[in-house]
Amino acid sequence: MGKIYVVGLGPGAGVQMTEEARSALTRCQVIVGYPVYLDLIRKEFAGKRFLSTPMRQEETRCRMAFAEAVQGADVAIVCSGDAGVYGMAGLMYEIGEQYPHIELEIVPGITAAIGGAAVLGAPLMHDFAVISLSDLLTSWEKIERRLRAAAMADFVICLYNPSSKRRKDYLKKACKIILEYKQGKTVCGLVRNIGREGESSVCMTLDELKETEADMFTTVYIGNEQTRKIGNHMVTPRGYRLHGSEKEPDEI
Amino acid sequence: MGKIYVVGLGPGAGVQMTEEARSALTRCQVIVGYPVYLDLIRKEFAGKRFLSTPMRQEETRCRMAFAEAVQGADVAIVCSGDAGVYGMAGLMYEIGEQYPHIELEIVPGITAAIGGAAVLGAPLMHDFAVISLSDLLTSWEKIERRLRAAAMADFVICLYNPSSKRRKDYLKKACKIILEYKQGKTVCGLVRNIGREGESSVCMTLDELKETEADMFTTVYIGNEQTRKIGNHMVTPRGYRLHGSEKEPDEI
Repeated sequence: MGKIYVVGLGPGAGVQMTEEARSALTRCQVIVGYPVYLDLIRKEFAGKRFLSTPMRQEETRCRMAFAEAVQGADVAIVCSGDAGVYGMAGLMYEIGEQYPHIELEIVPGITAAIGGAAVLGAPLMHDFAVISLSDLLTSWEKIERRLRAAAMADFVICLYNPSSKRRKDYLKKACKIILEYKQGKTVCGLVRNIGREGESSVCMTLDELKETEADMFTTVYIGNEQTRKIGNHMVTPRGYRLHGSEKEPDEI
Repeated sequence: MGKIYVVGLGPGAGVQMTEEARSALTRCQVIVGYPVYLDLIRKEFAGKRFLSTPMRQEETRCRMAFAEAVQGADVAIVCSGDAGVYGMAGLMYEIGEQYPHIELEIVPGITAAIGGAAVLGAPLMHDFAVISLSDLLTSWEKIERRLRAAAMADFVICLYNPSSKRRKDYLKKACKIILEYKQGKTVCGLVRNIGREGESSVCMTLDELKETEADMFTTVYIGNEQTRKIGNHMVTPRGYRLHGSEKEPDEI
């Protein structure tokens, strides 16, 4: 029996990959993933056996990984960003119930929320909520409920999948809901192609974000009441005492 | 003028550090940080000049970094986990307003929420909220408002700073609030010493979590309605269609 590593490649599978992820890929004979992600690592890991399935065939892809492990290979199934945030880790555990003898190890990666925040400045310095606007697997009612709750409680909000060809107006819809609770001048930010060629970021107000079209390569940040624009950066202060730490003497 | 890198070391500053973080530390002549974090990297980066200040003197620590950069050194100011999630990135931008000519670069890292999730299994597979229970810089009223909102909208909830000597009962208080909206049998998880010696994790119900004492080295996860225990792992399914993907054909 081989072992399966569910590996987060980080944004762009480049210098933001962890050492743990690199050594897991090095250790495995087989690497399974969505073609676009495999292309990011084919060169560096030439000589490995690469297996993939088209979009929407995640279950088949997972079963491929288990089939290879049953044959004795150590297998890495890769995701961009982190393996556990809207990634493949959960599905692997669900399917893994049918393969109780095969060990799964999750290798975390820098997810878009964290990688994009570093590009924008420091938008996630305080309590935040991560919400996907894709309603393929979640009802819009539930997404709307979460948008309202996060906006009402003044969370910094990070939006994944803000838009797609089918959902061109979803970011606008989300902004309208959030505007019922947050001010129009709330500082927001967009990051495109995190950790990839053409990486770019921009700050704007929530009013402006409502009129902005994001694409599927974009991660969106909506600040809290205290979030400020410093130079071209989006910065959320740590709390009401400007220069302090939330850590306590006994918390280190 | 030198440049300043605000570097997230990841959990434990070990194999979960990114290549980007390692090369930033390698590039710098001076490394500034809280003593406990510096101890994690002193050996690997022997020969660098290490500067630190005691707990609660974050502002002084930041000013040290700028003073060194003004003298021409490239400086890394380090945080455990990520630099932007309850880290030093925000404070560096705030103080940086007084040093407009010094360039800041944020180097992201694996934050406890992501690193701990990988240890537990896949608790953050769907929309989640990150909340710190420390009321040093945030009023308890605001923390309570966020706990209610996150629980009401069925977010998976990740708690930082769940407890301290001064706040022994805060996790219990938080659980009581969450129990007004989530069921007592909700699957929860605790991870201690993420990425460090003595790393351990345990799954339990929300009712059990209410009676559990966490320490300051613990990160706490509270599942959503769909979160299940699979073996010893905490797993949140991706959405209502069991085996699918939220990505869309035009979203890759």
